[in-house]
Amino acid sequence: MSTLPAQDGSVPSGPAPTVDSGSAALIPERLLHSIAADLSRRFVGIVSPETVQRLVFESYTTLRRTARITRFLPVLAQRFATERLIALGQARGLITKEVPEILMVCVHNAGRSQMAGALLAHQAGDRVHVRSAGSLPANEINLLVVQVLAEIGLDLGEEFPKPLTDDVVQAADVVITMGCGDACAVYPGKHYLDWDVPDPEGQTLDTVRAIRDDLDRRVRDLLTDLVAAAT
Amino acid sequence: MSTLPAQDGSVPSGPAPTVDSGSAALIPERLLHSIAADLSRRFVGIVSPETVQRLVFESYTTLRRTARITRFLPVLAQRFATERLIALGQARGLITKEVPEILMVCVHNAGRSQMAGALLAHQAGDRVHVRSAGSLPANEINLLVVQVLAEIGLDLGEEFPKPLTDDVVQAADVVITMGCGDACAVYPGKHYLDWDVPDPEGQTLDTVRAIRDDLDRRVRDLLTDLVAAAT
Repeated sequence: MSTLPAQDGSVPSGPAPTVDSGSAALIPERLLHSIAADLSRRFVGIVSPETVQRLVFESYTTLRRTARITRFLPVLAQRFATERLIALGQARGLITKEVPEILMVCVHNAGRSQMAGALLAHQAGDRVHVRSAGSLPANEINLLVVQVLAEIGLDLGEEFPKPLTDDVVQAADVVITMGCGDACAVYPGKHYLDWDVPDPEGQTLDTVRAIRDDLDRRVRDLLTDLVAAAT
Repeated sequence: MSTLPAQDGSVPSGPAPTVDSGSAALIPERLLHSIAADLSRRFVGIVSPETVQRLVFESYTTLRRTARITRFLPVLAQRFATERLIALGQARGLITKEVPEILMVCVHNAGRSQMAGALLAHQAGDRVHVRSAGSLPANEINLLVVQVLAEIGLDLGEEFPKPLTDDVVQAADVVITMGCGDACAVYPGKHYLDWDVPDPEGQTLDTVRAIRDDLDRRVRDLLTDLVAAAT
């Protein structure tokens, strides 16, 4: 529809300002449909094409709300949607969990949960799988966090701040929250921990290093517990 | 599952801390399933039960991320999910739009978009339907905004801050953004306007009144244009 709809359903004849097709404000509709079609094929028998399409379009819209640069959003939305579909398949028992799923949650998914996730993935290797999310995702990962992880040889690579979604909570065996209070609700029987770790946002490099080292100790203890519980 | 899963799939025998069933951190799973079942019946032939269930659970999780009080969240999630399902039905052409759908978007859905929505609904009566959303929804509506609307006899009633979702963008004929930059992307052919209106957050009562009056003029002009386009 290029003009305002009349109340009787007819299309008005007068000119009306609309969004032109070259505008950055436009949703990349064809690209998202194509991503949804690909994912529908990949998750056939696990999630219906209708649900996949909703999840792809809502993932794009959700990430866009807090994104600073929108150029690469379709790629991020594709990766976010894929991870959510895997989580949904796991929660439904249609995708096997080879190892425990650990979910790290903080406010911005730009500092603590990203650090904790990277440290645990590094320590655990292929013994666990880690996801992370935030209650109010930031538009990018804290640069000091990237730096202090690089100092110990860890690369956050293609990570980006993501909002907490129901699918990853459902799929998690262990949920660890940091500073997000009641924003993260969990399902009965999950292993649930709240870690009292300060937010690196606005802190000095030395403080962010101290937070990293605190998280490193917590992650090692968690891994010890996980290994003990599994043997 | 009440304990950590072992890697071989067996359930470990040792005790593990879990979330107890009385915890406020628990998702009200049964209640959400019941809401989803009701909505699936209501939207039969329009949205599949699987998609309805996803939408209900994700609506709850999304609202919870920014909620200050979680007690009434299932009710809000039900209303949010219902409106999103209607929007989805409209976007698919399976629910008839009797009047133009106007979507007001600002940052927090706590001030400008709520005021603009209330003012337009009041001026337009049943000639348009208004929705509102925010790119970063606040945990509650700005109290001065409630007050300045009450001064002119308007009651925000049961409104609450909601995040911008793809479904309401798809259903909209006119999208009006205020201060949220690129956070809101629209579909081709939508009537799209960006209003340069200051954020009432942190402003004095007099300034919030001035913002209300500015929005009132804009809303009257918009309605004149909508009526002209429809005749």
